[in-house]
Amino acid sequence: MTAADISLGELAAAVGAELRGDPEQRVSAMNTLAAAQGHELAFLANPKYRNQLMSTNAGAVLLRPDDLGDFTGNALLLANPYLAFATLSHRFDRTPKPATGIHASAVVAETAVLGEGVSIAAQVVIGEGVRIGAGSIVEAGSVIHDRVVLGEGCRIRSRVVIYHDCRLGNRVQIHSGAVIGGDGFGFANERGHWRKIAQLGAVVIHDDVDIGANTTVDRGALEDTEIHTGAIIDNQVQIAHNVVIGAHTAIAACCGISGSTEIGAHCILAGGVGVVGHIKICDGVQITGMTMVTKSITEPGSYSSGTAFDRTESWKKMAVRLRRLDDLVTRVQRLEKARD
Amino acid sequence: MTAADISLGELAAAVGAELRGDPEQRVSAMNTLAAAQGHELAFLANPKYRNQLMSTNAGAVLLRPDDLGDFTGNALLLANPYLAFATLSHRFDRTPKPATGIHASAVVAETAVLGEGVSIAAQVVIGEGVRIGAGSIVEAGSVIHDRVVLGEGCRIRSRVVIYHDCRLGNRVQIHSGAVIGGDGFGFANERGHWRKIAQLGAVVIHDDVDIGANTTVDRGALEDTEIHTGAIIDNQVQIAHNVVIGAHTAIAACCGISGSTEIGAHCILAGGVGVVGHIKICDGVQITGMTMVTKSITEPGSYSSGTAFDRTESWKKMAVRLRRLDDLVTRVQRLEKARD
Amino acid sequence: MTAADISLGELAAAVGAELRGDPEQRVSAMNTLAAAQGHELAFLANPKYRNQLMSTNAGAVLLRPDDLGDFTGNALLLANPYLAFATLSHRFDRTPKPATGIHASAVVAETAVLGEGVSIAAQVVIGEGVRIGAGSIVEAGSVIHDRVVLGEGCRIRSRVVIYHDCRLGNRVQIHSGAVIGGDGFGFANERGHWRKIAQLGAVVIHDDVDIGANTTVDRGALEDTEIHTGAIIDNQVQIAHNVVIGAHTAIAACCGISGSTEIGAHCILAGGVGVVGHIKICDGVQITGMTMVTKSITEPGSYSSGTAFDRTESWKKMAVRLRRLDDLVTRVQRLEKARD
Repeated sequence: MTAADISLGELAAAVGAELRGDPEQRVSAMNTLAAAQGHELAFLANPKYRNQLMSTNAGAVLLRPDDLGDFTGNALLLANPYLAFATLSHRFDRTPKPATGIHASAVVAETAVLGEGVSIAAQVVIGEGVRIGAGSIVEAGSVIHDRVVLGEGCRIRSRVVIYHDCRLGNRVQIHSGAVIGGDGFGFANERGHWRKIAQLGAVVIHDDVDIGANTTVDRGALEDTEIHTGAIIDNQVQIAHNVVIGAHTAIAACCGISGSTEIGAHCILAGGVGVVGHIKICDGVQITGMTMVTKSITEPGSYSSGTAFDRTESWKKMAVRLRRLDDLVTRVQRLEKARD
Repeated sequence: MTAADISLGELAAAVGAELRGDPEQRVSAMNTLAAAQGHELAFLANPKYRNQLMSTNAGAVLLRPDDLGDFTGNALLLANPYLAFATLSHRFDRTPKPATGIHASAVVAETAVLGEGVSIAAQVVIGEGVRIGAGSIVEAGSVIHDRVVLGEGCRIRSRVVIYHDCRLGNRVQIHSGAVIGGDGFGFANERGHWRKIAQLGAVVIHDDVDIGANTTVDRGALEDTEIHTGAIIDNQVQIAHNVVIGAHTAIAACCGISGSTEIGAHCILAGGVGVVGHIKICDGVQITGMTMVTKSITEPGSYSSGTAFDRTESWKKMAVRLRRLDDLVTRVQRLEKARD
Repeated sequence: MTAADISLGELAAAVGAELRGDPEQRVSAMNTLAAAQGHELAFLANPKYRNQLMSTNAGAVLLRPDDLGDFTGNALLLANPYLAFATLSHRFDRTPKPATGIHASAVVAETAVLGEGVSIAAQVVIGEGVRIGAGSIVEAGSVIHDRVVLGEGCRIRSRVVIYHDCRLGNRVQIHSGAVIGGDGFGFANERGHWRKIAQLGAVVIHDDVDIGANTTVDRGALEDTEIHTGAIIDNQVQIAHNVVIGAHTAIAACCGISGSTEIGAHCILAGGVGVVGHIKICDGVQITGMTMVTKSITEPGSYSSGTAFDRTESWKKMAVRLRRLDDLVTRVQRLEKARD
């Protein structure tokens, strides 16, 4: 695979930037301001890196006109350099695509219906009645069970499992090791013994959703688990049965969302957040890292739990004091009485 | 695959319910009281949904005689509708089963011994000396290493790995992406360098255990890691080497159990609980979500750690106060002295 | 596979122990002091198990001369019995190795270059331009994408994915279900919609690193994610894009390290630790279980966060008191003013 090799003129046109410099000069990669060389495109989005601009060796820089200062190198000027970086990054992406068509080692059911330009890579298994939209890619080692529907332009990375009857929209990306539509954790207790409840719902994933590596999204018990348009979910997240994730919500790695909980649109959950079951979180909520959310949230804003980290020695003292907090409150009450 | 289509008479007989209504009427699916249509069976187990009973469109409802009230639709009356729902749910389960026998793309060692009616799906790998009991299913993409023993009626979902010499009882379910018998995290430190300790034990899983998607159960260092009868373990749980999980214990998603810890029978660990190594938790303990258990528990009951979640602004103030708790205690002591 | 069968003389020589007993006696397995039988080798490293020495049935025991006491059985005497146990454990390891060469069911690109004695097991996929060093093993069901480089003596367990352009040193072990080089969680927000940033870096893993089952290590956004020599990482750990893990650092299960954070050498993170992004942790830091690290650490030592666990009833009272801590501080201030 040869590296990309794109002219500054073409790049500027692609993101609507004003070009200061040579439109014929070419770059073949992107990099940070600090590390970029002459064949590389860099960007300045965060003002705290402005001091790196004068010493960069980058072949060209994406930046705001206001940040230009005395910089005399090639510059692509525009209002949102970070967004332009996001857009242009795909021009330099070296992620290989499996060839169009079905690899000889793949096992595809005769009743599966594949759209135009679909790629089914090596060792893939596609079940009965599966429908895959045009241009979708299923990478090596993935298993798509019966009657799953994938829209157009989806990319299922290596070694994903999607269980029967789940339905994905267009341009959905599922990263390696994710399991979509495994059984929810549903059991009835009969005199101390757990009796499994068949999980009869499925998982519905709408357009433009991105689901991280080794993340699990369980199928619903009766109705479906649902992830709305444009939601992005990082690695190792657990989404239990009948959870609903709102549109354009971002969930960072290692979060766990318990059963039947609904999270609104445009929320951001930082890493390691836990959310109990059967609650609702409204739109526009941010939860800081490793917070445990134990009841519904009805007002937008930021929420947290936990204690600040400290030297273990100090922390141990604090933990002991904390256990005796009740005692401290009593002593203050006594002092207050004595004063009165 | 055609949907199930079962008469109310047959369903009532299957769970020993008294049928109020037409035994010849048929249903083809289950659903919630709120969403069910005429072809669907619903249930009323939690009294807080009793108000949905009068407006349900369900073809029939499982419920307690006491909850019947003025409901005039088809009713299957019995003492435990939730348990009956669990039992009947399997009649409507559309989870596909791979065909009996060995798929042409599977790789099965000649020394493997497969019982009657075993299903080995596409792209599976079965190692030397593996023994699989009658009626067990190994779904697409799973790898069963040498000398593993599976009992009868097990179901190994897609893309599971079971390492050499692990032994599973009857009716064990392992969900997709789980890794059973990977190496425990055992290293000796030699002047700052970690030297790996071969993990010579295996994993023993007794009858009727259910293990969730992307869960990991490590093999023992010398003796075996062991999961007793009827334990249920959710997704993304980590069970370290030489852990023992008691019978009928339930472990929710994202828990981590450190090495050599023993958890008793009939315990319930909510999501995200962490348990340190080398401790014992007695029978009948419940641990609430995201608690860190740092020492043995010898009395049944419920245990917790952590702080309540709050607006981040308030939480920050609390966190600062907490760091200064020591100071506050000193000030109260000073006030007490002044009073005396 | 026959069990190992090794003479005490050979074992003593292998670890430089002084043998007290019969050099011709043979053992075929290792076990704990308490469980070992006559054909098994045990060890005594932790003085708290010294009382088990006199009653052990072990065929021989690794121990310090000082711990010998009245023990008259076969003894291998040396300064560090735990390290010797680590070394000798590999002699009794029954982990099967796939045959050298390429299994008929594997799919290996013509442009891949395999060193001497490489094993490629069943259902493996090896991409274009992959280079695998001498003696490396790729177990069943793994997928190695284009241009990945593996050094010599690596072992890639079953069902691992390594994405394009990642580079591994020598003797690296990657356990089942791990995903190396999946996309980092990088998105630019454009008026509430997330726009994916192509992840153009890779993952670089140096010699002698061990990465646990179902762990995820994301590829860098621009530069590489990097794990230095001899680091050991347990199961279900999440390493985000552009993280750097120092040499000989140990990270226990279920930790999550956020993007661009650098962790020094010889650190130890206990289970379930979370670390925010864009910080630095210096060499020689220990973090206790389930701590959330929210800013850089510049001094070696041990750090913690969280609260001690307690009966849920007491914990609930504490949690309420904690929310009112501000109020308590105000009351103490008022008392102090009254006193003055």
